[in-house]
Parts: sequence; structure tokens; C-alpha cells
Amino acid sequence: MIDELISQIKLKKNPTVAGLDTRFEYIPDFLLKEHAGPGSGFEGVAEAIFEFNKEIINAIYDLVPAVKVQIAYYESYGIPGMEAFKLTISHARSKGLIVIADVKRNDIGPTAEAYSSAFLGETKLPEGSARAFNADFATVNPYLGIDGVKPFIDDCKKYNKGVFILVKTSNPSSQDFQDLRTEGGRVYEIVAKRVNDWGTGLLGKYGYSSIGAVVGATYPQQLSELRTVMPHVYILIPGYGAQGAAAADIVGGFGDDGLGAIVNASRSIICAWKSDMRNSEKYAIAARTEVIRMRDEIDSALAAAKVRAW
Amino acid sequence: MIDELISQIKLKKNPTVAGLDTRFEYIPDFLLKEHAGPGSGFEGVAEAIFEFNKEIINAIYDLVPAVKVQIAYYESYGIPGMEAFKLTISHARSKGLIVIADVKRNDIGPTAEAYSSAFLGETKLPEGSARAFNADFATVNPYLGIDGVKPFIDDCKKYNKGVFILVKTSNPSSQDFQDLRTEGGRVYEIVAKRVNDWGTGLLGKYGYSSIGAVVGATYPQQLSELRTVMPHVYILIPGYGAQGAAAADIVGGFGDDGLGAIVNASRSIICAWKSDMRNSEKYAIAARTEVIRMRDEIDSALAAAKVRAW
Repeated sequence: MIDELISQIKLKKNPTVAGLDTRFEYIPDFLLKEHAGPGSGFEGVAEAIFEFNKEIINAIYDLVPAVKVQIAYYESYGIPGMEAFKLTISHARSKGLIVIADVKRNDIGPTAEAYSSAFLGETKLPEGSARAFNADFATVNPYLGIDGVKPFIDDCKKYNKGVFILVKTSNPSSQDFQDLRTEGGRVYEIVAKRVNDWGTGLLGKYGYSSIGAVVGATYPQQLSELRTVMPHVYILIPGYGAQGAAAADIVGGFGDDGLGAIVNASRSIICAWKSDMRNSEKYAIAARTEVIRMRDEIDSALAAAKVRAW
Repeated sequence: MIDELISQIKLKKNPTVAGLDTRFEYIPDFLLKEHAGPGSGFEGVAEAIFEFNKEIINAIYDLVPAVKVQIAYYESYGIPGMEAFKLTISHARSKGLIVIADVKRNDIGPTAEAYSSAFLGETKLPEGSARAFNADFATVNPYLGIDGVKPFIDDCKKYNKGVFILVKTSNPSSQDFQDLRTEGGRVYEIVAKRVNDWGTGLLGKYGYSSIGAVVGATYPQQLSELRTVMPHVYILIPGYGAQGAAAADIVGGFGDDGLGAIVNASRSIICAWKSDMRNSEKYAIAARTEVIRMRDEIDSALAAAKVRAW
């Protein structure tokens, strides 16, 4: 799956990912009123969310290689929210986008298998099998070690999928446990080395593995170090835009080949319409404008650092 | 919420939790055929799962203080599976059981808020708010540090709920990262101390906090050590039965007051009917028999160790 992601990146000359972390507060009033009137509950909000996501996907699918869908917001709207999550994945894939299900799942072996079936593989039924959510990549939390991660890796092989495993997250308190010093380096460095090793059986034609890592844009120094520690690992970099990181901060995540990283921004894209509230009906165009701005900003930073792959 | 859990434990003289990690392979054929005939897909299986769970809950609710519902299996059956998850929680609560949503969620602050809204709190809507899944406890993965955990703690206060935070998991490769040695002890020990500190604002009348921890029964020595390291923390102990741990292994999780731990078993209870396949229609009675056997086994072990609270 990493090769498909990289060819989308090369095709669109853009390593950025639009994060569809949609909640009703991000949706223009006119659209919310249309779908989520009084008493419509989770159903109404979920309908508005999917409509909003669909229009944004339609407006940007030719510009970005991938979207990342953060499941927490969808779960918070119950079953209708999960339905919107599923429809969003399906619509994005129908437009040729790679879909990253940001689910940060983790459990012991047999249970991790069930999670992996839900998001990447297939679930067995009494007769045959079926796909529950069918994303292309899922994010995974590594705290339980290899036997919690292996079911995902197995499904990456079997179904041509990928994962991004949390290594160093973008939030301030990622230091609480990830930065603890051990005999072999900090915890996140140990995790990074293991992630690199776990992916060696899944290398694609560009030398990168379908077993990727998450490293926050808010820690640029660690990002550069981890690029070296994990030579085969594609890095998903969250934290751009609303979380405070800028183009210069993410350059270290890229290799000399101009590949090796994708950069996610969520609120700055899907809430772009809020900077011109009088034109809120043009929310999808505002998202497109912001995607172009972000693409060009990152493109310039990569060109300046001489790590641009196109 | 910890006081409610403890009073259920005292009332039923039983610190065990039945794990409803239900998948279709655990359901007797006759029941599966009734609900999940050819072509019925996820809907049929989900219907069979809820029916199976409901009958087991009805057969054991007077014996156990709580059930733990492992969401991975429900997610693997897509939207219908999530519906079965929701119905199971709701039915268990209607029988007076405490419900632990085993979801191991984790993310950065604002996203962790959304997860917490989904499982413990309420989700804001354009008008008012609503509850998505409404469990009593949720399990949480601590890898992102305090700002990923705080939203859950805040909701524990606001909505009288609780969490169990992963400290040392029951699987073999929990040693990969949890056992790494740092300057201040092993990673899981550092996590344990923090969990104890995080819970001090939520102490109940028995001296325990609504901020609990998960420590696997498969590591009895660490379990005893962690009991001392986390004096205020209730410990959820998975791994009993099918995962190999026995009654003697879990005694160290209990304090001198005979409290401080709950012990989960899943497959040994819900698959108990498989030891007498000819009577598979009595699966709920088989589960009840196994719950009694496990209760008595643990009761004897606690009595022998002189840490029985009743």
C-alpha cells in the first residue's frame, strides 16, 4: 500500500493529507440547519457531517494524495456517527484517495486481530466474510508490544494495506512516557527502531515499508533524528497548522529522496471557511484554497531544503 | 463510580467480571441459525451476539458486580456490531451491572475529549447534548501522557464515571516497551505511579479512586509490586482462565482490606457451553455454572491468603 500512497504523492506533487476530524462546530450554520434541525439528534448531525465531508472531498481530491479520518469525533455521535465515518471512507476511496483511519487501536493478539479485521481486513462470518470499514491505513498504538501489532502487519501483507504506529506524538505531554530515558535510548527511540524492523518484510519499490510511524510536527528535532533511525519508515506528521507547527518544522521528516513523510492538517483545512464567515456556503472552496496554500508552502520549504521529489 | 463498583462487589461477595468478548464462533449453532442465516451478513451475526449476551447477562447479573465489553469484536462486525455493543451495555446497566467498556482509547487532548464523550460523558449537539454509548468505566491507553488522559478524568468527575488505565498488560510482548528500564524504574512502574497520582482527586469512601489500572494476571509478581506502588488504585486484572492465569496468581492484586482488584474472565465463561456441546441450548446456564465456579475458586484463594473482604 505504501507504493500506492507514494505514487499518489508524486502524481499530485503534494505530501499533505487532509484531516477530516469533523464535528458539528466546524460545519457552517446553513448546512447544519438543513440536516440537523431541532430534535434530529445524532442522526441529523451525522448527516450534516457526511454532507460536509463529501463536498470537501469533492473539492480537494485532485490535490491531495490522502485523507485522514479521526474516528473519535464520529464515535462521539454514536451509531449514526459511525455510519458517517463509514460513508466518508467509502466516498473518499471512490474518488481515488488513500484513506487513513486514525483509530489508534491497540490490544493483545486475538483482540488486535478483531480490530485489524474491522479497519483493514475482512471479518469472518458463518458463511464467507465481509469488510466492516475498509480503510487503506490505520493508526496503531504500540504500548502492548509486537503481539498487539502483528495482526495488523499480517493484514497489511494479506490485504495490501498499511499502518502508522505511534512513535512520538504531537501533544505536550507526549514526553511523560515516550521521552523516558532507558539504557538503549528514549522510549520513543526504542519504539522507532522496532517499527523500522517490523516493516522490513513489507518494503515497496521506493525502499519504504507499509509499516509507517506517527511523529508529531511539534518536535522538529526528534523528527529529523527519527528520519535517520527509521530509514524504511514512512512518517505521518500530525500537528501542522492549528497545532502550531510550520513548514520549516516538517522538513526534517523527509529523506534526501524528497519522500518519507506525509503531513496532516485538519482544522486549518476544514475550518478555513471561518476566516470569511459571510461566504460560509463556499466552505469547500475555502478548504481547497487552504489545501493549495499549504501545498505551496510545504513545496517551497522542501525546495529550499533541496528535498523535493518532483 | 468506584464506590458503586465496590458496593456491588461486597453485595455479591465476588470480585470477578464477566467479559463479553462475543464473536460468532462463541455462539451455539442453534442460536446462530435462528438469527444469522445465509445472506444475513453483519446484521444477522450482530443480532445473534446481542441475543447471546442478553441471555448470559440475565443468567449471571445476580452473581457478578460488572461486565466488561470488548469493543474490538463488535467493531469487526461494522455498524450492526456497534449497535449490538450499545444494546449490550444498555441491557447490562438495566440489570444493575456496572459496565466496563474495554476500548483502550487514546489520543491528544481535544480528540481524547471526543472519545470520552462517546463512552463516559455526553456529546454536545447544536441543541443540548446526548449520550452515545454510556458505559460506567472505560479502559484507556496512557502512551500519550496526561493530556490524553485528562479529558477522561474530567468526565469521571463530571459524570460519576471511572477509567482503568493500561499499566502492565497480560500479553507476552507487554515486556517490549512496558518493561524497559528507565532511571526511575521500569516504564510500567512510572506509569503506575502517575496513575496513582492522577486519581487522588477522585477518592471514594473506601480509599480507592475512580482512576483505576489494568495489570495482567499473567504477571503475578509485578501485580503484587504494583498493588504497593498504587495504594489508591483499583486494579482490573485480565488474563484469568483462557489466558492461563489461576486463582493464586491474582491474590497479590488485592489489598489487606480484601479490596483493590477485580478479575476478568471472558472465554472461560461465555464459551463454557462448549465443554458439553450436546446441551448447547443451555449456554447461559453453563456460563452461570462457570461464574459460580470461578467465584468460589477466587473466594477460596482470597480466604487462604486472608484478604477476603466479606
